[in-house]
Amino acid sequence: MAAHYVDLNADVGEGFGAYAIGDDEALMQVVTSVNVACGFHAGDPRVMARTVQRAARAGLGIGAHVGYPDRVGFGRRAMALSPEELRTDVLYQIGALAAFCRAEGVALQHVKPHGALYHAALYDEAVARAVVAAVASFDPGLVVLAIRGSRLAKVAEAAGLAVAWEGFVDRRYRADGGLVARGQPGAVIEEPERAAEQAVRMVREGRVRSAEGVEVETSVHTLCIHGDQPGASAIARAVRRRLEAAGVQVGPLARHPALRR
Amino acid sequence: MAAHYVDLNADVGEGFGAYAIGDDEALMQVVTSVNVACGFHAGDPRVMARTVQRAARAGLGIGAHVGYPDRVGFGRRAMALSPEELRTDVLYQIGALAAFCRAEGVALQHVKPHGALYHAALYDEAVARAVVAAVASFDPGLVVLAIRGSRLAKVAEAAGLAVAWEGFVDRRYRADGGLVARGQPGAVIEEPERAAEQAVRMVREGRVRSAEGVEVETSVHTLCIHGDQPGASAIARAVRRRLEAAGVQVGPLARHPALRR
Amino acid sequence: MAAHYVDLNADVGEGFGAYAIGDDEALMQVVTSVNVACGFHAGDPRVMARTVQRAARAGLGIGAHVGYPDRVGFGRRAMALSPEELRTDVLYQIGALAAFCRAEGVALQHVKPHGALYHAALYDEAVARAVVAAVASFDPGLVVLAIRGSRLAKVAEAAGLAVAWEGFVDRRYRADGGLVARGQPGAVIEEPERAAEQAVRMVREGRVRSAEGVEVETSVHTLCIHGDQPGASAIARAVRRRLEAAGVQVGPLARHPALRR
Amino acid sequence: MAAHYVDLNADVGEGFGAYAIGDDEALMQVVTSVNVACGFHAGDPRVMARTVQRAARAGLGIGAHVGYPDRVGFGRRAMALSPEELRTDVLYQIGALAAFCRAEGVALQHVKPHGALYHAALYDEAVARAVVAAVASFDPGLVVLAIRGSRLAKVAEAAGLAVAWEGFVDRRYRADGGLVARGQPGAVIEEPERAAEQAVRMVREGRVRSAEGVEVETSVHTLCIHGDQPGASAIARAVRRRLEAAGVQVGPLARHPALRR
Repeated sequence: MAAHYVDLNADVGEGFGAYAIGDDEALMQVVTSVNVACGFHAGDPRVMARTVQRAARAGLGIGAHVGYPDRVGFGRRAMALSPEELRTDVLYQIGALAAFCRAEGVALQHVKPHGALYHAALYDEAVARAVVAAVASFDPGLVVLAIRGSRLAKVAEAAGLAVAWEGFVDRRYRADGGLVARGQPGAVIEEPERAAEQAVRMVREGRVRSAEGVEVETSVHTLCIHGDQPGASAIARAVRRRLEAAGVQVGPLARHPALRR
Repeated sequence: MAAHYVDLNADVGEGFGAYAIGDDEALMQVVTSVNVACGFHAGDPRVMARTVQRAARAGLGIGAHVGYPDRVGFGRRAMALSPEELRTDVLYQIGALAAFCRAEGVALQHVKPHGALYHAALYDEAVARAVVAAVASFDPGLVVLAIRGSRLAKVAEAAGLAVAWEGFVDRRYRADGGLVARGQPGAVIEEPERAAEQAVRMVREGRVRSAEGVEVETSVHTLCIHGDQPGASAIARAVRRRLEAAGVQVGPLARHPALRR
Repeated sequence: MAAHYVDLNADVGEGFGAYAIGDDEALMQVVTSVNVACGFHAGDPRVMARTVQRAARAGLGIGAHVGYPDRVGFGRRAMALSPEELRTDVLYQIGALAAFCRAEGVALQHVKPHGALYHAALYDEAVARAVVAAVASFDPGLVVLAIRGSRLAKVAEAAGLAVAWEGFVDRRYRADGGLVARGQPGAVIEEPERAAEQAVRMVREGRVRSAEGVEVETSVHTLCIHGDQPGASAIARAVRRRLEAAGVQVGPLARHPALRR
Repeated sequence: MAAHYVDLNADVGEGFGAYAIGDDEALMQVVTSVNVACGFHAGDPRVMARTVQRAARAGLGIGAHVGYPDRVGFGRRAMALSPEELRTDVLYQIGALAAFCRAEGVALQHVKPHGALYHAALYDEAVARAVVAAVASFDPGLVVLAIRGSRLAKVAEAAGLAVAWEGFVDRRYRADGGLVARGQPGAVIEEPERAAEQAVRMVREGRVRSAEGVEVETSVHTLCIHGDQPGASAIARAVRRRLEAAGVQVGPLARHPALRR
């Protein structure tokens, strides 16, 4: 029987000009895939070049973290873009990031929408279609990161793209499989060992205990590791250690047995 | 003996959001290669998508018109970027434009710096090196547009890149082979037939009559057609008509016999 | 009895860098107040300076046309800004425009939100409050342009600000007093004389015939003249001519008898 | 005899969206005037509002830190703007910042160009004239920060503006009164007590010992305190403590006896 395998992904390359954010170096020692900002909500060409170079040298899977054209809002504010604006904004960002991969001699692995665009793509069919159209037209071999059962996952799967289902180690799930909204009590799991435990159960048992106490079925190819919170790297390290201790193989999506095409 | 062959290039895709500029449709009926703005000094993803689609359908050679990150200045203001900022800004723009080519199933043909960046690359070794490094790292098969003998041409040639030497049909040359500075009397050739005549002589005879009346040797693979001046399309049409009447084959750089690699 | 008086307002100063849009010169000969873009959705400092100078010389009332920070979308795309982001974005834009007025020795007359921000402020209490807070904190003597009965009008009135109720000469009204949505048949009035007739009736009789044929009560201090459509200036001239022929006094808001404070 | 008086100024409000930079809170406890970024090279409306509010509550003199429109370059890259572009860019920024002052009920105190614009204004007559024209047209009562004897100081003085001569506590001077270029050995003074000693001598004795060992005459109204270097706040505190211990009155420019108008 196939061994358990999971990817750990984190957002990196979110600096901009003189501004730094996040501890990319620490994260890159723990995760197996990185979502690199593409200059719309965060990042700039110089930061992208350096980030892709580091990730390539570390053997990490590299993804385009595409976002809304809203730098001051860090891509976290909903924006009413037309489908054609969305499609072309996403395609532009993928191409820009892919250029840095090409210069490093590595292939782009995946695409993950960021912030408000991710949220929109998960729930809004038109947004999901625009994102997927951009990905498919650039390279149908790219993996799309999405939550299982979301609009984005369904549309990408229907288009023949590989979809990596994403789970969250430091967020509490609801009984219906969704996440407890940020800001609600108990939404965030702060203790590294609790987060690590949730990670192991999601990968090995395919389930997680919800906030309501009910067991919820999960199926994940990749786990999202947040980097911008205090204690993030402690969680990241605990998750990786416990996963490996539990016999789970941790590696990039490109080598995920269930995602081979 | 090989027939005379020349490419005609023009800047297109310079619109931005609600703003339109230039008559791309008219230009695309006359030229054989287009320099497409990449979203830094002009253009945006939606405009790029539409421009590349039109150019691809018209069978034109498509180039990345890379510029300084200065939209309000239209890339015409000198900026003191570091070599690494230059290299990564150029690489970013090439990648973004190439994505739209890829989505249309066509290959990117060339790269031409725009405005103040072109000027800097022609004269400044460090700028030329940064631009060339970006091009070479993305695709050593790309053609670089440059003036013969310029820093940019020399650095690109030394790096093994194909360089298309560019001539100007509507500008008067100096005896030393440079152009009469804009703003000086007689700098611009406004009568279409005069411009067409200069074009034919440059291509067929390899020479042009300078402002001083001296014959200057020229060697060009591509002729720049300006689109943003009144009477520009009349010049463009006259140039093409006269070139073809004179037996010159007019076609994109990708099929230029002297640029085959 | 007081004579009828109305202001005519139009959007101007929407150029940006090398990009021109709208025929400001023609509009400024017809309208009595201008809404000047402030560099967020359109305009730039140089364009603002020139526009304010022209308007000041023509004796027009000058307003800040404040918009979302979305230049590529021309401020027409809804954006989910926090109230504090909204308030400070609006205050920033008012201050920037007021600086050009101050340099010309004239006072800023009014504030009008643009595009998607106008739409949000008309219907969304939190947005209206943020806009009004910005205006009031800068100068409680500023007039706010709004549709009568809208959230924006009510919040501004409650804050003690003067509100100029705005009517539309080239749009058809619904029986409930709203506008027929763009894109619906009959939404736009294209014949100048029809638009002029609607203008005269709105000002003199306080009513307009709706798309459904019902008479709707209106009360307007200012009429919006669109400048970016073909035939716009013909409409503008017809409206002004007919208003004056009907004995209506046409002048800026600052001299509107009903808005004196 | 008049007591010695000096202002301490520091750059603040350089955050942008999700990005933070500098320790404004610590700096604001030591300095008497702040240079607030105005959204071109750094800062955004929300950051400006918060920064001005804090500074106003602390009773600090507030200045507009105007810069080039180059956020990714943090205003540190030279740009070839036309005089009219410069003048209007500066006027725009002053107006925007002044709006936040007005909302807090305080007056704008001064204007200081940032980074590459400061450098250009110190040495280039056309740049100095453009900056001064903007300041004078907004409010001839504003103080301009400049190095004594620079183009900027001379042009501002000729225009009748008050100029606050600026000294540097953590940079070593050359025998000709200029600064040892950054990057050269000994350019930066890192030990707080040395910097404090230089500050005291500049203010009380009107001289400083140059890198060459020669005494150089100085005349300063304000001392620049850098906030973005490690150890910056230690230097700032040492400077203030030693100045006060030496009987120097430390306060904002607005109360500087030599700058009263």
